[in-house]
Amino acid sequence: MTMVDPELQPTLLPTLGGETYVDPSYFVREQDRIFEQMWFCAIRSDDIVEPGNFRTVQIGRESVLISRNRKGGVTAFFNICRHRGATLCTEASGTVRRNFQCPYHAWTYDLDGKLIAAPNLIDMPMIDRVEYGLRKVHVREWLGYVWVCVAEDAPSFEDTVQGDVRERLGGVGAIDSYDMDSLALGRRIVYDVKANWKLIVENFMECYHCATIHPELTEVLPEFADGMAAQTYVGHGAEFGSDIAGFTVDGSHGFDALDGVSEDRDRRYYAITVRPTVFVNLVPDHVIIHRMFPMAVDRTVVECDWLYAPGVVADPTNAATMDKSVELFHRVNEQDFEACERCQPAMSSRMYRDGGVLVPAEHHIRVFHDWVGSRVAGPAQ
Amino acid sequence: MTMVDPELQPTLLPTLGGETYVDPSYFVREQDRIFEQMWFCAIRSDDIVEPGNFRTVQIGRESVLISRNRKGGVTAFFNICRHRGATLCTEASGTVRRNFQCPYHAWTYDLDGKLIAAPNLIDMPMIDRVEYGLRKVHVREWLGYVWVCVAEDAPSFEDTVQGDVRERLGGVGAIDSYDMDSLALGRRIVYDVKANWKLIVENFMECYHCATIHPELTEVLPEFADGMAAQTYVGHGAEFGSDIAGFTVDGSHGFDALDGVSEDRDRRYYAITVRPTVFVNLVPDHVIIHRMFPMAVDRTVVECDWLYAPGVVADPTNAATMDKSVELFHRVNEQDFEACERCQPAMSSRMYRDGGVLVPAEHHIRVFHDWVGSRVAGPAQ
Amino acid sequence: MTMVDPELQPTLLPTLGGETYVDPSYFVREQDRIFEQMWFCAIRSDDIVEPGNFRTVQIGRESVLISRNRKGGVTAFFNICRHRGATLCTEASGTVRRNFQCPYHAWTYDLDGKLIAAPNLIDMPMIDRVEYGLRKVHVREWLGYVWVCVAEDAPSFEDTVQGDVRERLGGVGAIDSYDMDSLALGRRIVYDVKANWKLIVENFMECYHCATIHPELTEVLPEFADGMAAQTYVGHGAEFGSDIAGFTVDGSHGFDALDGVSEDRDRRYYAITVRPTVFVNLVPDHVIIHRMFPMAVDRTVVECDWLYAPGVVADPTNAATMDKSVELFHRVNEQDFEACERCQPAMSSRMYRDGGVLVPAEHHIRVFHDWVGSRVAGPAQ
Repeated sequence: MTMVDPELQPTLLPTLGGETYVDPSYFVREQDRIFEQMWFCAIRSDDIVEPGNFRTVQIGRESVLISRNRKGGVTAFFNICRHRGATLCTEASGTVRRNFQCPYHAWTYDLDGKLIAAPNLIDMPMIDRVEYGLRKVHVREWLGYVWVCVAEDAPSFEDTVQGDVRERLGGVGAIDSYDMDSLALGRRIVYDVKANWKLIVENFMECYHCATIHPELTEVLPEFADGMAAQTYVGHGAEFGSDIAGFTVDGSHGFDALDGVSEDRDRRYYAITVRPTVFVNLVPDHVIIHRMFPMAVDRTVVECDWLYAPGVVADPTNAATMDKSVELFHRVNEQDFEACERCQPAMSSRMYRDGGVLVPAEHHIRVFHDWVGSRVAGPAQ
Repeated sequence: MTMVDPELQPTLLPTLGGETYVDPSYFVREQDRIFEQMWFCAIRSDDIVEPGNFRTVQIGRESVLISRNRKGGVTAFFNICRHRGATLCTEASGTVRRNFQCPYHAWTYDLDGKLIAAPNLIDMPMIDRVEYGLRKVHVREWLGYVWVCVAEDAPSFEDTVQGDVRERLGGVGAIDSYDMDSLALGRRIVYDVKANWKLIVENFMECYHCATIHPELTEVLPEFADGMAAQTYVGHGAEFGSDIAGFTVDGSHGFDALDGVSEDRDRRYYAITVRPTVFVNLVPDHVIIHRMFPMAVDRTVVECDWLYAPGVVADPTNAATMDKSVELFHRVNEQDFEACERCQPAMSSRMYRDGGVLVPAEHHIRVFHDWVGSRVAGPAQ
Repeated sequence: MTMVDPELQPTLLPTLGGETYVDPSYFVREQDRIFEQMWFCAIRSDDIVEPGNFRTVQIGRESVLISRNRKGGVTAFFNICRHRGATLCTEASGTVRRNFQCPYHAWTYDLDGKLIAAPNLIDMPMIDRVEYGLRKVHVREWLGYVWVCVAEDAPSFEDTVQGDVRERLGGVGAIDSYDMDSLALGRRIVYDVKANWKLIVENFMECYHCATIHPELTEVLPEFADGMAAQTYVGHGAEFGSDIAGFTVDGSHGFDALDGVSEDRDRRYYAITVRPTVFVNLVPDHVIIHRMFPMAVDRTVVECDWLYAPGVVADPTNAATMDKSVELFHRVNEQDFEACERCQPAMSSRMYRDGGVLVPAEHHIRVFHDWVGSRVAGPAQ
């Protein structure tokens, strides 16, 4: 297979200017126009199994309370009491019996957010129990994750989240075959990266750096050594090297392929960027999900989940193999995030005021840059 | 006694918008138009007993040097040398023999602030010793405390500080009967609260939260369980429960009532908010004073003094009783400040852009909000 | 010798207003119009001896990579890869064999900055290897130090750096007689000062404070007790006291005078301020160089080098004498920097809005203030 693409123009394209990576006010606009207006992959559905289980997640500048109601449905609310603004739940996760009670003045909400009790409430007929219920956040489950949108009006989930998957894979059906809803969490590693979130996206989108910093990955996926990302071509998955038995740190066999994975995908790696903050990595025997939480203009927390068939996770004899399986992309993550942190300081240089350059193998990053620019120039909420 | 007030309108009033609690530039305006223009309760008069004793206090953005001169009077100056701006005294407290000497170029000021010596001063006739003396700060003693005002022109002490007491108690005479000048410091606890100062004021002004977070206090003052603050009605003091012997953490007897306290006040708690930063709590056998030092938009240091008759403080056999006496409001403080810290994060939410709501029992907080708003909209210095 | 100068006018001159010492946006303008437009004393030439030796230095907001090329010449570049902005060298110092390779995508530059290799470079004819070479920084060696200028167009080295020396000493020849190129580093001490860089310059320029805070220095240089700085008169050097044998902490003999030092300079101390960030101190047997690195509006790192004849440094039996030699100005530094830190807090006071005053012995500081003001008002890059 040759990776030379006749359509790649032999030109250099400019990147975004350095200011967009270091200016706190630009980040505020990104919070307002991107993270707080789009669908955000918040938690795994499995994180809240029983009614009353809850998680709190920071999305943009908002704390969101996600829980499961009596009927087993997932709900999401701004984590703020409607009375005087106390934070309802300060823990990252927990369980309530049947309602959320504000610890300040005891305003009490049921699991669907309705105001059901408060001191002297009976004397205050002007308090409508629905109008003064918890403010709802749009919520949707897909791929085994809970996606939320804190905007007043959520964009179409089909056009945005699923649109990014469709554009990359050539259709949503391809991802369905991995049946992610049914997978179990094998490992979660959280990285605290001192770099702007866009540097992390750009890094994930191109493979021009692979030969330089990813020796283990290019061993498994030899075509990556040529610098072409799996994301350059619609529907393309990078093929395992001929002597590679599995997607593990030493190329040894991992686990059996997931049930729905067809033969033509059986020795391939697929990568998808779901804007703004999710990366999906598909290999035959597991799926790796990155979720970014941009905390500041120069700091991004990344949660990375390794998902396997439930039987694989349940069986303790799989521990050593899973270690090798996880170790491959854990190393890739560390290599990538170090590179991103190395770029962050230069973003404030006068020399980078107009940005750097994208070589042909990176040209598709320009689409991401244009998209960021047009979102940030768009209307505030 | 019934706490239902026919005049309380069954409506919800809006609070201040969230931005006023998190925007650093709003805080700068508060520093300029409130803390640095009004009387500020700085230290206890007893903190500086002898001539040359001094204390330095941060008021708004200014360091103020408060000391006692040769005649025994209290003086207050900007803590800055007039020559090149060195801080005169960097310690929180201390004693000088007869003057303040700048440690940089040895400009020397007497205890009344007059410039009395400097290298080559005799050769510099253009330096007027009064004009280049320390810049004076307005100073006043009342209730055993030194109050200072760093503004060019101080507002009327009678209209502002004493006005707040009069409005609350129905007259200044009521507070005089506690003869606070003569009391001694039994305990001082300093709290570092990660919340905007206005959240602390609002919390002190209402008792709608008492039933939820103050079990010990509502045990002593049962009417607080109904949610009506002592501050709702002019002149009202909350009555001790019938089985309560004193204002202590377990309701046991504290100390004998202060000499001037009349019989009708003998089993009552009075609370007064003296804007912008002082709370006065009167109970029969002691007085509790809170002084806030707003350090940043999201941080406030609170110094709380427990004052008793000098004989009570001097007698070591009172230690156990004083512990119980102090413990009651110390717990109240901790409960309150935790609640304030819980509100601070939500102040930056889009959901709190227009604030929350005040129930009827909190309507008087609206007066405080209106006052803050009009001060901040007022002229800069 | 009398220090009374008939030309000193008995007036007080105003200093800069306090805001210029505390406003972060004023500091940004100083970075842009002063530190990043002028010659900046970066490293000692001896710090990079062999080809491939390098140092990285922060100058204003820029990281500069200074190294020695194959021909032994000194080169300086922005420490940023031209491709996507990764920092080339993250260490403060080190050695490369023959080129600088970016660790992100392996773009490789030779020691003269030319792009010599990159993945797929052969397929990218649009990448000009000079145009996409490292961005050069102006560089110059003088007095044994490497001076760099990160501006597009560097000002005249003769008019600025050497002009300051000429103006102070009455000619550049006077400093040449110390033959600083040939000296060796005896000691380096780094101070982290919590004060604005201008306070440090002002302090160095005047000696009105010497009697108050420098007992050891005024013992060695008695005329400093009168408050007149060596910098008040062109060409003046402060004379050692009659019982002083050398420029050491106890006035004992130091080392033999440097070879070129003439007899009339043999017992004198000369001080020169080279704007914006260098102080040169000349005494018969050594030279002391201060280089300031302004890190923030309220923080300045100062590196101080004590330079001696190479034979003095090489001889271990000189250790005790060198300790006494270094100790004198180390104490002066500590005394000065403490004074500067004491001024910093007052700069934000309303009382210092229009600044303080300069007594006649400090009037020459006004020239520095006017210069800063006119630079900051000048054009941005």
